[in-house]
Order: sequence, then C-alpha cells, then structure tokens
Amino acid sequence: MNLIDGKKIAAEIKQEIALEVKKMIDKEERPPHLAAILVGNDPASETYVNSKAKACKEVGFDSSTYKFESNIEEEELLKTVEFLNNDPDIDGFIVQLPLPDHIDEQKVIQAISPRKDVDGFHPENVGRMTIGLPAYVSATPNGIMELLKRSDMKTAGKNCVILGRSNIVGRPVSILMSRTTEPGNATVTVCHSKTQNLAAITASADILIVAIGRPEFVTADMVKEGAVVIDVGIHRVPSAKTKSGFRLIGDVKYDEVAPKTSQITPVPGGVGPMTIVSLLMNTLRARKNEIYP
Amino acid sequence: MNLIDGKKIAAEIKQEIALEVKKMIDKEERPPHLAAILVGNDPASETYVNSKAKACKEVGFDSSTYKFESNIEEEELLKTVEFLNNDPDIDGFIVQLPLPDHIDEQKVIQAISPRKDVDGFHPENVGRMTIGLPAYVSATPNGIMELLKRSDMKTAGKNCVILGRSNIVGRPVSILMSRTTEPGNATVTVCHSKTQNLAAITASADILIVAIGRPEFVTADMVKEGAVVIDVGIHRVPSAKTKSGFRLIGDVKYDEVAPKTSQITPVPGGVGPMTIVSLLMNTLRARKNEIYP
Repeated sequence: MNLIDGKKIAAEIKQEIALEVKKMIDKEERPPHLAAILVGNDPASETYVNSKAKACKEVGFDSSTYKFESNIEEEELLKTVEFLNNDPDIDGFIVQLPLPDHIDEQKVIQAISPRKDVDGFHPENVGRMTIGLPAYVSATPNGIMELLKRSDMKTAGKNCVILGRSNIVGRPVSILMSRTTEPGNATVTVCHSKTQNLAAITASADILIVAIGRPEFVTADMVKEGAVVIDVGIHRVPSAKTKSGFRLIGDVKYDEVAPKTSQITPVPGGVGPMTIVSLLMNTLRARKNEIYP
Repeated sequence: MNLIDGKKIAAEIKQEIALEVKKMIDKEERPPHLAAILVGNDPASETYVNSKAKACKEVGFDSSTYKFESNIEEEELLKTVEFLNNDPDIDGFIVQLPLPDHIDEQKVIQAISPRKDVDGFHPENVGRMTIGLPAYVSATPNGIMELLKRSDMKTAGKNCVILGRSNIVGRPVSILMSRTTEPGNATVTVCHSKTQNLAAITASADILIVAIGRPEFVTADMVKEGAVVIDVGIHRVPSAKTKSGFRLIGDVKYDEVAPKTSQITPVPGGVGPMTIVSLLMNTLRARKNEIYP
C-alpha cells in the first residue's frame, strides 16, 4: 500500500506557483490577486478565509478580505460582488459559504462574473466543465484530479465508483473522471443514498472516491484488493489519545481498508491540503486569462 | 414485453400543449413563438427545421425561420442571434447545427441568451441542469425523461447503464437519471469507448439507455432478462423489403433484444418523436418564464 501524500503534493504545487509569481514580479507584472467576501462570524468560515489569505501570502499572491456583519442586506452584498466583478486589479474572488438565511445564496453565486468565479460554483463554469470546455473547476474535485495526475494514476478503462452525488464533490468528480482527457476515461458509477447493494458495487471499483459525509462509512469488505481509495470526508471525533482531545477521521475506516488498497489518501493529509491549492491554481489561471481569453 | 410508444406519447403531449395554447389565445394572450436560424443547404438540417416549423403550427405556436447562405460571416450570424435575444416577441430560438466550418459553433451557442436557449446547449443551462436548478434541458435527454415519466417507470434505486457520453445525450441523461428528482435516483454508470467488459456491465442494468451511434450494437447477450431498454440510435440502412429501399434501425438489435426486455423503445417511433416535442415543451416554458422568472 502506498500513501497518496496530499500534503507533499500540495506543497510542491505551491512551490511551482510561487516560482511562477516570482517570474511575474521579476518582469514587473502584477501578481495574482484573490479576494474573499466573508459574512458574519462563523468560526469555521473565518478559519477558511484566513487560511486562504495565508496561502496567498505564501505563494506571493495579493489577497483581500471584504468582511460584513451577518445582518448585511442582500442588495449590499450584490453591490460588493458587482464592485469586485469590475475591479481590474482583482483576478478572482470567492464568497465564503454558507451565507445567512435571509440571503439567496444562488442569487449571489450567479451574480459573480464567471470570469472571476475561481470557486467554480457559477452555473456557467459548471456547464463548461460538463461539456468539456475550459472552466474553473471547484476546489475539491480539482484537487482530486490533481492528486491522481501527480500520482501517475492510469485511470482509462478503470472502473471508478463515486460515493456521493453532491454538487461540490460527487457530481463534478464523476463528470471529470469519465471525460475524454487524462485523468479520465474511466467507467464511472455514481452511488448515493438510494443505491441498492452498495457494497457489491464499491467492491467492483478499481478506483473508489468517497464523498458521502459519514465517518468511517466504508469498511474493508466494501473494497476490492488492490483498489485505489480517495477519501474526501473529514470528521472531528473525540479521542482520549490526543492532547487536543479529538482526532480527524474520514469517510473510510482507514485502519482496516488501507492494507487492502494499492494507494489511499490519508485523513488528514490527503484531499484536504489540495483544496486551497486548487483555489490558488484557479486564481493563477484567472491572472493569466487561461479559461476566458 | 411492452413497447414504449414514443409516437403516441409525443402525440399526447402535443395535444396538451395545443390545449394550453388555445387557452392563451382565448385569453387574448400571444401564443409561444419559436424561431430557428438555418445556415446553408444541408438537406437534413432543412428537414429538421421544416419539421420544427410544422410541429409549431400543429400546436398553435408562431414560428419563424432565419435563412442564410453558407458563406455568411460569423459576425452577421452573431448579430442575428443578438437581434433574436432582444426581440420581445420571440420566446426561444435555436441555431440549427452543424454550422459551416468557418463559423465557431461554441461562440454562436454562447451568444444565445440562456433565457431563450430552448435547445439547452448554452453552458449556463447545462450547468443549471447539472446542479439541479431549473434549466432548459436539450431535446433528446428531455424526451427520454418524459418517456420514462409517462410510462410510470420506477427508477429510484435501479441500476441504470448509459452507453455513450456525448454532450447532447449520454452525459446529460446520466446526470438527470442520478439526480434526486423522479424519474431519477438511479445508480448510474456511464460506459464509453474505453470501457472494459462492457457486456457484463450492460447485462447488470435494470435500465439500459443506448446512445452510442452504432447500428445494432447491443445484442441479446448484453441485456438482462426483464430490463428496460431505451434506444436513442437511428440509422438508415438499405433494405430489399421496403418500397423506399431502406429501413431505419437503432443502436439495439431489436429482434433479439426486445423479447428479453420488460419495456423497450422501438426505432422508429421511440425516442425520435419525443425530440421535437421536447423543443415545443421548452418553448412553452419560455413563453411562461418558468425557467428564468
């Protein structure tokens, strides 16, 4: 069994990005600039936005955060989106989700210019990805594809089973894995809460991608000997063994599944570190007008 | 074995649409108006556009066709698209494909306002469909879903195998079949040219949707006893038995497959008749501002 070391791969990509930014600055070009809109005081959201700003700094990007109280009017938020859409110094921006209940999340997402939508949530980017046009692909599916690519995974003709059909992971990764480019060309099956005989289906997978959001859901009997397992889940559970009093686990029962696999992503340190790096990659693409020339 | 009679279902839907149009006219409202842009003299394209105009007439829609020589400049075509985007009397329009080589097809498709894109080819409509928002879904996948719905097919939890991953059939129907609404909730596998052990996979399907574009590709050994088979293919082959000298066949070897199935679409008279009806349904939705209020 080999670990797919997301932490290491993410660090490598960061170095590559930092090098590219350095070249830009050497040529007296402006570095990429990522902005974030943060509404309210949700601690998890604040942590995410801070991590994104920190990652920007590490690779030499400019970053800015637009903070608002949770009682901000939808109208005002939409005006900020419009302002960022039109600011030529900002290459891409994200609106940290979730938003307060009185704000229509889809309306805000759809107000973002697809050209600056580095989170890849705008229907136009989702549609472009679906039909195989250049697109901003959202962080987690983009990160998974990058992990596979950089692990030299041969995916063509393989049976790939996806557990979960969410708009942010399962659905897009199922499309990416079955498209005609590499990694891709896999025979993809999407499983979900209505799937029958789930264990038989997952046990047929050469590549099993688990994004079901249930701690240690996938057990050894559900996995084929020699399979590749990508675990997207991350859950914090109490632990008597750690100083912090908790530990992180995935959607896969790692201890019993890992020995059966040929390659597996650990939790933490697998898919997780790739998400912010994906956002940086998209922002760099935005700076270079790669997706929308 | 029961036939899924696309011709009959299409006729029923046309009647329903005609009734709704009659009510509009009785209330002195304007009937739906579908326009088509036709470039060049491809006989198949001319036939399609004429059929669409004829179908409009049958249900009481207005229709208009904008015809251009095959040497039209892209610029001029884009101006026509813009004109139709802004004409308040036109609810939806299509650009008949294929376009001549000197014209960038994607550029033209993306110039169509998503609100009037009743063919459902604009990335924004594809994206909206992918994430489960109201969307114009393109004719063939929309027609297949409507066939299933009107045949009272229970699809939840069923194994659905799709042969083909094209942007106009395989990909969208795979998304629609695995989404959370009915028909849907199936466990969907997408197969294609790189798929290995294809016959074993298709033989596991409760619902087999074939859109691979190869005459009589699916044989009896590839189909499970009691399966539902939807045949999207349509091919004209020489025949000594018909007056015309040819006959139409599908992607499925009907004579040997049909007896094994519980339900199957014939060719012709299965999926085919549903496509134009889907376009009418989308145009009616456009008239009522159902997708984009």
